[in-house]
Amino acid sequence: MFLTRSEYDRGVNTFSPEGRIFQVEYAIEAIKLGSTAIGIQTKEGVIIAVEKRITSPLMDPSSIEKIVEIDSHIACAMSGLTADARTLIERARVEAQNYWFTYNEPMSVESVTQAVCNLAMQFGEGEDAESGSMSRPFGVALLFAGVDTEGTDKRPVLYHADPSGTFIRFDAKAIGSGSQGAQSTLQEKYDATMSFADAETLALSTLKQVMEEVITSKNVEVAAVKADKPFHLYSKEEVEAILQRLEE
Amino acid sequence: MFLTRSEYDRGVNTFSPEGRIFQVEYAIEAIKLGSTAIGIQTKEGVIIAVEKRITSPLMDPSSIEKIVEIDSHIACAMSGLTADARTLIERARVEAQNYWFTYNEPMSVESVTQAVCNLAMQFGEGEDAESGSMSRPFGVALLFAGVDTEGTDKRPVLYHADPSGTFIRFDAKAIGSGSQGAQSTLQEKYDATMSFADAETLALSTLKQVMEEVITSKNVEVAAVKADKPFHLYSKEEVEAILQRLEE
Amino acid sequence: MFLTRSEYDRGVNTFSPEGRIFQVEYAIEAIKLGSTAIGIQTKEGVIIAVEKRITSPLMDPSSIEKIVEIDSHIACAMSGLTADARTLIERARVEAQNYWFTYNEPMSVESVTQAVCNLAMQFGEGEDAESGSMSRPFGVALLFAGVDTEGTDKRPVLYHADPSGTFIRFDAKAIGSGSQGAQSTLQEKYDATMSFADAETLALSTLKQVMEEVITSKNVEVAAVKADKPFHLYSKEEVEAILQRLEE
Amino acid sequence: MFLTRSEYDRGVNTFSPEGRIFQVEYAIEAIKLGSTAIGIQTKEGVIIAVEKRITSPLMDPSSIEKIVEIDSHIACAMSGLTADARTLIERARVEAQNYWFTYNEPMSVESVTQAVCNLAMQFGEGEDAESGSMSRPFGVALLFAGVDTEGTDKRPVLYHADPSGTFIRFDAKAIGSGSQGAQSTLQEKYDATMSFADAETLALSTLKQVMEEVITSKNVEVAAVKADKPFHLYSKEEVEAILQRLEE
Amino acid sequence: MFLTRSEYDRGVNTFSPEGRIFQVEYAIEAIKLGSTAIGIQTKEGVIIAVEKRITSPLMDPSSIEKIVEIDSHIACAMSGLTADARTLIERARVEAQNYWFTYNEPMSVESVTQAVCNLAMQFGEGEDAESGSMSRPFGVALLFAGVDTEGTDKRPVLYHADPSGTFIRFDAKAIGSGSQGAQSTLQEKYDATMSFADAETLALSTLKQVMEEVITSKNVEVAAVKADKPFHLYSKEEVEAILQRLEE
Amino acid sequence: MFLTRSEYDRGVNTFSPEGRIFQVEYAIEAIKLGSTAIGIQTKEGVIIAVEKRITSPLMDPSSIEKIVEIDSHIACAMSGLTADARTLIERARVEAQNYWFTYNEPMSVESVTQAVCNLAMQFGEGEDAESGSMSRPFGVALLFAGVDTEGTDKRPVLYHADPSGTFIRFDAKAIGSGSQGAQSTLQEKYDATMSFADAETLALSTLKQVMEEVITSKNVEVAAVKADKPFHLYSKEEVEAILQRLEE
Amino acid sequence: MFLTRSEYDRGVNTFSPEGRIFQVEYAIEAIKLGSTAIGIQTKEGVIIAVEKRITSPLMDPSSIEKIVEIDSHIACAMSGLTADARTLIERARVEAQNYWFTYNEPMSVESVTQAVCNLAMQFGEGEDAESGSMSRPFGVALLFAGVDTEGTDKRPVLYHADPSGTFIRFDAKAIGSGSQGAQSTLQEKYDATMSFADAETLALSTLKQVMEEVITSKNVEVAAVKADKPFHLYSKEEVEAILQRLEE
Repeated sequence: MFLTRSEYDRGVNTFSPEGRIFQVEYAIEAIKLGSTAIGIQTKEGVIIAVEKRITSPLMDPSSIEKIVEIDSHIACAMSGLTADARTLIERARVEAQNYWFTYNEPMSVESVTQAVCNLAMQFGEGEDAESGSMSRPFGVALLFAGVDTEGTDKRPVLYHADPSGTFIRFDAKAIGSGSQGAQSTLQEKYDATMSFADAETLALSTLKQVMEEVITSKNVEVAAVKADKPFHLYSKEEVEAILQRLEE
Repeated sequence: MFLTRSEYDRGVNTFSPEGRIFQVEYAIEAIKLGSTAIGIQTKEGVIIAVEKRITSPLMDPSSIEKIVEIDSHIACAMSGLTADARTLIERARVEAQNYWFTYNEPMSVESVTQAVCNLAMQFGEGEDAESGSMSRPFGVALLFAGVDTEGTDKRPVLYHADPSGTFIRFDAKAIGSGSQGAQSTLQEKYDATMSFADAETLALSTLKQVMEEVITSKNVEVAAVKADKPFHLYSKEEVEAILQRLEE
Repeated sequence: MFLTRSEYDRGVNTFSPEGRIFQVEYAIEAIKLGSTAIGIQTKEGVIIAVEKRITSPLMDPSSIEKIVEIDSHIACAMSGLTADARTLIERARVEAQNYWFTYNEPMSVESVTQAVCNLAMQFGEGEDAESGSMSRPFGVALLFAGVDTEGTDKRPVLYHADPSGTFIRFDAKAIGSGSQGAQSTLQEKYDATMSFADAETLALSTLKQVMEEVITSKNVEVAAVKADKPFHLYSKEEVEAILQRLEE
Repeated sequence: MFLTRSEYDRGVNTFSPEGRIFQVEYAIEAIKLGSTAIGIQTKEGVIIAVEKRITSPLMDPSSIEKIVEIDSHIACAMSGLTADARTLIERARVEAQNYWFTYNEPMSVESVTQAVCNLAMQFGEGEDAESGSMSRPFGVALLFAGVDTEGTDKRPVLYHADPSGTFIRFDAKAIGSGSQGAQSTLQEKYDATMSFADAETLALSTLKQVMEEVITSKNVEVAAVKADKPFHLYSKEEVEAILQRLEE
Repeated sequence: MFLTRSEYDRGVNTFSPEGRIFQVEYAIEAIKLGSTAIGIQTKEGVIIAVEKRITSPLMDPSSIEKIVEIDSHIACAMSGLTADARTLIERARVEAQNYWFTYNEPMSVESVTQAVCNLAMQFGEGEDAESGSMSRPFGVALLFAGVDTEGTDKRPVLYHADPSGTFIRFDAKAIGSGSQGAQSTLQEKYDATMSFADAETLALSTLKQVMEEVITSKNVEVAAVKADKPFHLYSKEEVEAILQRLEE
Repeated sequence: MFLTRSEYDRGVNTFSPEGRIFQVEYAIEAIKLGSTAIGIQTKEGVIIAVEKRITSPLMDPSSIEKIVEIDSHIACAMSGLTADARTLIERARVEAQNYWFTYNEPMSVESVTQAVCNLAMQFGEGEDAESGSMSRPFGVALLFAGVDTEGTDKRPVLYHADPSGTFIRFDAKAIGSGSQGAQSTLQEKYDATMSFADAETLALSTLKQVMEEVITSKNVEVAAVKADKPFHLYSKEEVEAILQRLEE
Repeated sequence: MFLTRSEYDRGVNTFSPEGRIFQVEYAIEAIKLGSTAIGIQTKEGVIIAVEKRITSPLMDPSSIEKIVEIDSHIACAMSGLTADARTLIERARVEAQNYWFTYNEPMSVESVTQAVCNLAMQFGEGEDAESGSMSRPFGVALLFAGVDTEGTDKRPVLYHADPSGTFIRFDAKAIGSGSQGAQSTLQEKYDATMSFADAETLALSTLKQVMEEVITSKNVEVAAVKADKPFHLYSKEEVEAILQRLEE
C-alpha cells in the first residue's frame, strides 16, 4: 500500500518493514530521468556513447559534458544529476592520481570504481564538504571504461556503478532513460568477439533507437579507451563517420 | 497527485519516488518571479540587458544593481533573489582575482561559471558562513558574459547558470519572468553573423516586448564586454540612443 | 490556497512551490505592525521622523529610542522589532567606526547600509552570537539618512533596508504601520527642490495624518543630518516649532 | 482563527503570517500568572513592593525572595518564573560590579537594565550555560529601581523590562497577575510631586486592592532606594507601620 | 481543552499560550507517584521520615536508600525518580565539601539547597554529563534537613526543593504520593514549641496514616540532625521504639 | 486513553502528563521478552541459573553466553538485549579491576552494581561511544551475585539492576519472560536457612517450571559464587547431577 | 495493530510499548531479500557457498564478490546490503591484522566475529566515518568460517552474526532469501561426522534446491578453510566437479 510506504521513504537511512531503504531506490529512479549512456567492451578496447539533450537551438552542445577523462586509461560516462556526478568524478581523478604518485603505475579500473562507490555509500553518515560525502544518496549512475595493464597484457574492462554503491563488470551496459530498451538490444546483438568498429556501430545504432530526437553528430558524445590508444573523445567528423555507417 | 508531491518537497535534499529533488525545482520557480535579463553573443562581443522594476517614483533606479562587473573581461546579469546573487557574485570575483594572481592571465568565463556552480551545488551539505554554502538551493539564475583570450584570439562567450549548478553555453539566452516569450524571439531573430549594434537592438526590443512597464533609459540596465573593449556599463544617453533606434 | 501555503511557511529557508520564502515575507509583515517612520532627502540634508507609541501616561517617552546616531554623518530610524534593530544598529556602528580607523574618512551611507544588509541576509546560516546572524529573518526595517562627502561636495542620501537584505535609495520613504498612506502623500507632495524647512513640515504633516494619536512633541522623534551640520536630534521645543507651522 | 495560530506558536523563533513571534507573547502570559509587583518613583527615591504567595501556614515567608539588591544603588523586583529571574539578576549583578571595577563609579540604572535585556533577547541563538542565553524567551518581568548620580545630582529612576528585551522608564509601574487593575490605580493616583511616604502608602494600598489574600507584613516585601539612602529592605515593623497608615 | 494543551507539553522548554511550561508541571506529577517523605523542624533539631515500598518479601529493605547524609550537619530525604535524585545529591555533597575546604566552616543548609536548585533549573540548556544538567526537568523533590551554626547559635532548618528549582523553608513539609493528606495533618498538629520526641511521633503517625501498607520498622527510614548531634540514621530498634509510642 | 499515551512515549526523556517516562517502562517490557534468569542467595553462597533458547539443533549452545564473570568474587546473569548487556558488563569489569588496582581489595558487589546503574541512568544525556552512555534506556536486567569480604567475614549477596538504574538487594530474584511465575515460586519456597544444595535444586526446579522447552544440561547455564570458592561455571555433568536430583 | 506499530518503527533507537526495537527487526528483513549463503562445519574444515544473482547475461559474475578472505584462516560469506557488508569486513580484517601484529598468533574466529558485532551494535550512537558506526543497524548477515589453532589442535568453527550484534556458533547455517528451506534441509541431513566432500555436496545440493535459477559454476561462489589448508576460493572447475557429483 502506497500510504504505508510513504512513511519510511523520506528517512535517508531508515529501513522499511520489508527491509528496504527507499531513498536509495528513489535515487535509482533519478537515473531513469537522465540521458541514455551506453558502454561496450571488446578485445581491442571499450567504447562509450552518451545522448545529449539539446533543448534550444541557441544552446552550445559542446558545453554539455557527459563523458570525462578520469586518467589517460579510464573514461567515465554519466547519467542522472550532473552536480552529483561531478563530485564522484573529482574523487575518481584524485584517487587515480594519488595511486600513480604512490605506486608509479596506473590504478586498475576496478579500484577506481570501488573508490567512487565507497564515497557513494557514505551518504547520511556525518556528511562534510571536505570528504565529499552527502546527506542523501548520489542520484547518478556511472560507466567506467578503461584498459588495465597486467605485465605486457592489456585488458579492456567496463564497470557500472549505481547509487547504492554496488559496482559490477559488464560486457555491455546501458544506463539512463532509454536503458531498458537499449540493454535488450545490447544483449541480443553483443558478441564477445566483435570488432571495435562493430562495437562503435552497435553503440550508436542502439542509442539512435532509444533517443527521442534524431541522432546527429551534435547530440551524442562518443569516447573510447583502447589497448593501444589512450582516452580519445571523438570529433564531430568521427561521430558522423559512424552515423554514416549506420545508414549503410 | 499534488498531495503526494507535497510530502517530499520540503526536504532540501530528499528524493521523491520519481527521483526528483523538489527544492531545486522550486528554486527555479523563484527565478520566474525575477526581472527579465537577456544576453546575446556576437563575434564582436556580448551584450546583456536587464529590466529594473521601479515600484515608486521616489525610488532611485541607480541604486538597483542588476548587472555587475566580475572582472574587466566578464559581466554578470542576475534574475531572482538579489541576496543570493550577491553571495555567488562575491565568489566569482574572488575566484577571478585569485586566478589572476596565481597565473597572471585572465580566468576563462567557463571556469568562473563552473566555480560559481560548484558553490551552488553544495546546498544542504554542512553550510557555513565562511564557505558561503547554504541550507537551500540558491534562488537565482545568472548570465555570465565575457571574452576569452586564447593567444591573440579573442572569443566572446555567454554562459547561463541555474540553481541546480548546471551551466551551459548559449548564443543568446533570456532568464526571469519574461524568459519564455523572450527566448522565442531570440531564437527566431538571432543570427550568428549579426553585428554588435544589431545585438543591442535585438536585446532591448526583446526586453521591451516582455516588460510590463514602458521601457525607458531609467528602467533598464545594459552592459557589454567586447573583444576590443573591457566591461562597460551603458550610460543613460547610450541606452536612450538604442531605444531611439528601436522606434526607427 | 491557504492550506498549501502553510506547509512551507515555517521553514526559515525553504522554497514554496512558487519559489517564495515565506518567513521573509512574514518578517516584512512584522514591520507593518511597527510604528511609522518617515525620511525625506533634500539638497540641504535629510530629515527623519518617527512616531512613538505612548501606551501609558506614566511611561517616560524619552526612554523609547526610535532614532539613533550611527556616526556623526549618519542617522538611522527603525520600525518593527526593537530587539532585532539593536543588533543591526550595533553592526552599523562597528562598521562605520572600523572604516574610519582604517581609511581615515567617513564610510559612505550606501556602504553602511550594505554591511547591515549582508548581516540581515545570513539568517538560518549557522547563526552564532558573535557574528550576530540569526535563525530567522530580522523583523525590522531601517531608514539610513546621511550625508556623503566626495571631495568638497556634500551629498545627502536616504536608504531603505528591509528584512530580505534588499536596500534601495529613495528621495522620500515611509515604513511601518502607516507606511502605505504616508508613502502616497510623500509621492504626491515631494519635490526635489523643496527647502529643508518644507521637508520638516512635510515629514510631520505626513506623520500626523497616519498616526492614531494626536501628534505632540512627546510622541514623535525627529532628527536631521545636514550638509553643514552633523547628526542632530530635535529638542522638544524644536519639534513643537514645526508642529506649530503645520497649523499655520 | 486559533488553528492557524497554533501552527506557528511553538517555534521559538518563527514568524507567524502576521509577523508575530508567539513564544515571546506566551512568555509575557507567564508573567500574568506571577505575583504582583509595584514600583513608584518620587523625587526622594523609588519604592518597590511585591506580593508573596503563602500557600501554607508552615511555609517560612522570609525564604521567598521577590526583591533583590543588584548594587547598593539599585533594587530589583521580579514577577514570573523565579528560576529565569535568578539568571537575569546574576547577570545584572555581574555587570554592575564589572562597571564599578572598570570605571570606579556606579553603573546607571538604564545601563544595567539594558545589559539584562541584551541577554533576554538572545534566546534561541546558540544557547549555552556560560553566556546564560536560553532556548526560549525568559518568562519573567523585572522592575529596576535605583538612583543615578550625575555630579552632585541624584536622580531616582524606575525601569521596566519584559521578555521581548524591551525596557522603558516609568513613573510608576505594576507587573504580574494584578497588574491591570494596579496600573489603573497608579495612573489615577500618581502625582510627580508626591512625597516618599505617600508613595509608600500608594504602593501598599494598590497591592492590597489587587491581592487575593488579606495584606499583612508577612505576605508583602518592600524595599526602597533613596537619594540619600542606599538599598533598604523594609523590616516587618516598617511594613506594618505603612499598613497601619492605610487604615487611617 | 486538552487537545490544545497536548500541543505544547512535549517541548521541554516551550511556553503554552497561557505562559506555562508543561514539562515542569509533569515532573511535579512524577513526585506524586513517589513514596511519601516527611520533615519536621523543632528547636532541638529536624527529623525526616520516609516510606519504603517493599514489593516482595525477598527484597532487602536496607538496600533501598531514601535518606542520605549530605554532610554531618545536613540530611536529605527524596521522593520521585531515584536516578535523578542521585545526581542532585552528588552535587549537594560536592558543593558542601568544596565549601568546607574553601572556608573551613560548614555550608549553610540554604546554600546547599540553592546549589542543587541551580542545577535543577538548567534542564534543556546544553546538557552534558560533566555538569550534570539534563534534557528534561529532574523528576524528584527533596527535603533538606540540617542545623546551621551562627557563632555559638545552632539553628535547625528544613528546606523543600522541587523540579522547577524553587526552594522554600518550611516548619514541616510532606512530599510524595501521600503528601496532600500528610500536609493537612502536619498543618493541624504542628506546634513550633513541640519537643523533638513529639516531632518523632508526629512524623511517624502522619506517615502511618497515609501509607497503604502497615507501618513497621522495616518499611520506613528515619533520620535526624540535631543541634547537639550530627546526622543520625535511626536503627530498627529506635524506629520500633517510636512506633511503640504511637500505639500508646 | 492509549492515544494520549502514544504522544509521549517516543521521547526518550519526556514526562507524560502523569509524570511517567514511557521509554524506561518499555525497556522493562523488553526484559519480559528475554530468557528467564534466577538468582538465590544462601549463607554459603549465591547461585544463578539462566535459560538458553536453542532455536535450532545445529546451534552450539555453548556459544550463547548468559552468565559472565565480572571478577573472581562476582557473577552476573542477564536477561533482555544481549548487545546492551555487553556494554554494561564491560563497564562492571573495568570498574572492578580499577578498584582492585587502586585499593588492593575486591570491590563490593553493591558498588559494582551501582557503577553499572550510574551508566544505565545516563541515557539521552549526550551519548558517546567512549563513555558508553546511550540515546535510549538499556533494554536489559542484570543479576549480580557475589560474596563480599568484611575482615574475615564472607557475606554472599544478590543484587537486581533494572533499566531505570534502580538496584535492590534480594534474597532470591527471577527476571525475564518467566519471572512472574518464578518469583511466586521463589517467594513460597525460599528459606533463609536453606542449604546451598537446596538452593541449586530450587533454582533449577523453578526454571524447569517456567521454561517452554524441556530443561536439559544443554539449555540452562548455572554458575555459583561461594564464600569458600570463587566464580564457578557448572559443567554439563554438574548441571545434569542437579537435574537428576529434581526427578528424585 | 499495524497503525500503532508504525509509530515506533522509524526511530532507530526507540522501544515500542512491547519493548521491541523495530529498526533492528526490519534490518533482519533486509537479509531475507539477500542472496542465500550456506556454511557447514566438519571435522576437517568449514565450507561456505553463496548464490550469485546474475540479472543479465552481459554481467561478469566474477565481479560480484560474495565471499571474502578475512585472514588466511577465516572466510566470510555475506547476505544483504553489500555496502554495509564492506564496512564490517574491513573492520574484521583490520582487527585480525592488528591481533597478529600484537600477539604474533592468529585471532580466533570467535574474537573476529565479536569485534564485528561490537561495531554492528553501535548504530545510532554518534556515528562517524572514522569508527565506521552508523545511524541505522547494518542490513547484512555474515557467516564467519575458520579454523582455530589451540596448540597443535586445529578446530574448524562456523559463526553467524546478525544485525542486532548477536553471534552464535552453528554446525551448519543458512542465511538470505532461501534460508528457511535451506536450514530445514541442513538440519535434516547434517551429520557431525560427515566427510568434507559430503559437506561440499550438501552445501551445493541445498543451495540448488532453494535457488530460483538453475545452479551452475557461474552463479555460485564456494570457499573453504580446512585444518590443513588455508582459505581457498574454488575455481570454476572445482565447483563444476561438485555439481557433477550432485547429479550422480
